Amino acid sequence: MLRYHALMAMPSRLLSVTRTLCSAALKFDGAVSMVQGASRGIGLEFVKQLLENNDKGHVVATCRNPNGSTGLINLKDRFAERLSILQLDVTMENSIEATARSIKETYGRLNLLINASGILSIPEVLQPETTLSKVEKSSLMLAYEVNAVGPILVIKHMWPLLKVGGGYGTEKDVAVVASLSARVGSIGDNRLGGWHSYRSSKTALNQLTKTISVEFARKKDPIACILLHPGTVDTDLSRPYQRNVPQDKLFTKEFSAQKLLSTINNVKRHDNGKFFAWDGQEIPW
Amino acid sequence: MLRYHALMAMPSRLLSVTRTLCSAALKFDGAVSMVQGASRGIGLEFVKQLLENNDKGHVVATCRNPNGSTGLINLKDRFAERLSILQLDVTMENSIEATARSIKETYGRLNLLINASGILSIPEVLQPETTLSKVEKSSLMLAYEVNAVGPILVIKHMWPLLKVGGGYGTEKDVAVVASLSARVGSIGDNRLGGWHSYRSSKTALNQLTKTISVEFARKKDPIACILLHPGTVDTDLSRPYQRNVPQDKLFTKEFSAQKLLSTINNVKRHDNGKFFAWDGQEIPW
Ligand SMILES: NC(=O)c1ccc[n+]([C@@H]2O[C@H](COP(=O)([O-])OP(=O)(O)OC[C@H]3O[C@@H](n4cnc5c(N)ncnc54)[C@H](OP(=O)(O)O)[C@@H]3O)[C@@H](O)[C@H]2O)c1
Ligand SMILES: NC(=O)c1ccc[n+]([C@@H]2O[C@H](COP(=O)([O-])OP(=O)(O)OC[C@H]3O[C@@H](n4cnc5c(N)ncnc54)[C@H](OP(=O)(O)O)[C@@H]3O)[C@@H](O)[C@H]2O)c1
Repeated sequence: MLRYHALMAMPSRLLSVTRTLCSAALKFDGAVSMVQGASRGIGLEFVKQLLENNDKGHVVATCRNPNGSTGLINLKDRFAERLSILQLDVTMENSIEATARSIKETYGRLNLLINASGILSIPEVLQPETTLSKVEKSSLMLAYEVNAVGPILVIKHMWPLLKVGGGYGTEKDVAVVASLSARVGSIGDNRLGGWHSYRSSKTALNQLTKTISVEFARKKDPIACILLHPGTVDTDLSRPYQRNVPQDKLFTKEFSAQKLLSTINNVKRHDNGKFFAWDGQEIPW
Repeated sequence: MLRYHALMAMPSRLLSVTRTLCSAALKFDGAVSMVQGASRGIGLEFVKQLLENNDKGHVVATCRNPNGSTGLINLKDRFAERLSILQLDVTMENSIEATARSIKETYGRLNLLINASGILSIPEVLQPETTLSKVEKSSLMLAYEVNAVGPILVIKHMWPLLKVGGGYGTEKDVAVVASLSARVGSIGDNRLGGWHSYRSSKTALNQLTKTISVEFARKKDPIACILLHPGTVDTDLSRPYQRNVPQDKLFTKEFSAQKLLSTINNVKRHDNGKFFAWDGQEIPW
């Protein structure tokens, strides 16, 4: 009874963190995990937590400019050969292929692939649209290339490694592919409009992931592909748009990554092709 | 009783055709309609039926190469100044803008816009993918450019004309924008996988249309945007993939266009943002 009350009294974020840490440590120990889009933000936080929560196992962190990520360089100092940092730009397919070759040679498998890269705005280049009259072809194409095509090409080239990793090296009987989508990519949940380029790129990522999941299931590949909405998280990506977000709806990246790792940790084969929010709830398409 | 039995005995396709003709003639008489992607296939059939079913009103048919469409040239012979044929390639935004300027000068409004253009396969360029390992960036990008971005840019530039047309010139209190999507663009209904480029482009078209519909509703613009699945229709697009389609599931373009015009005809303001199949049933996202 005492324990129960103590748990109830804990702020709910802390509570879930505790749960996450316990379960995360269990299932991905010994894993070879790849986090794509790891220079900063939620991706970098995934790398940190995967290394801290598991005593064994390796993390391959990829980013566009390895020398520019102080976050990754600091983790490399702490975790040495448990962390590899490789150059990968999702718009350059040859960098994806080179990464796959390197992982194949060094580890021969992948147990977990997290696609964390994504763009919402780039000064002078890409602005989230507030009206149809501001929709530009170049923005639509760029967001699609980075947010939808990029992660899918990563899955394409890591597929053989994930097949090996499914059921080998960890307690899980499947390798997990988790791609960061966004709730605004839901069509059914679209009540506000706007953000045309970002929204449609994430919606397309959802469809592409679902399409891939069907093939993995049909071929009985030991891989479960899921889509994740991290909540509104305090990172560079959301910073210009945080003004109207209530404080308790703006998550730290530590909190969001812990919640998402908890979901990833609990993924079963039948979750293949599903779209989950940070709290584990399914999001409509 | 006799009439009832006679109707019941009519093949259901014929029955619906009769209904369509009656209602189509009613609501779009006097309309200025634009059919985009009208050189052949379902688009060309829309042009034909809009002209035949309405005694008054004008149709602007657009296509990439007006001199190459014998179908449109034949209709021009029959319907003279009730049909205008303009050059428009959805990948060339300047051709969309030029069309908008021309319609503005000649008619000053649009009551109906049908986006019928679309690509599934192009020999040597684009093949519907049967597996993730055959997914190519160039195919994903091309399908997105033509099937998702193109129709949205058309709506963007016709928007001012549709605002004028809503409630003016026909019996309808809204202008209708109908874009041809496809059931395979539904994520919830995706059980077969494959066709990655085409699927995700249509899913993105759905999301973009939904996003636009939210803005139209918020601004109280007299425009209803809908998405349509025409069924599997015997056209150039489906020809290479008809082998496994049962005969009664393969529609003629005449039948499909009639069913879709019936839906378009019945569109109300509250249908804005919805996705309908050829039989008027809503399709899940
Ligand atoms: N933050 C939120 O509130 C929120 C909400 C919903 C969904 N999400 C999604 O969550 C994911 C992570 O977002 P975040 O908030 O952590 O964003 P962030 O802090 O802006 O980080 C974005 C990451 O994506 C990388 N990236 C951008 N373009 C890339 C490319 N072409 N190739 C490889 N990597 C590329 C960036 O690398 P560089 O350092 O090289 O630029 C960076 O590591 C994104 O997919 C985002 O859409 C975030
Ligand atoms: N047929 C089916 O079973 C089926 C099923 C589901 C959905 N659909 C959708 O229904 C629509 C009509 O299909 P359909 O069967 O009539 O196809 P179709 O016979 O192949 O005709 C396609 C039309 O799109 C035009 N087009 C292609 N690229 C274009 C561009 N860049 N700019 C402007 N126009 C362009 C073509 O013009 P050109 O003559 O210049 O090439 C042609 O008029 C498409 O959106 C398709 O995705 C069809």
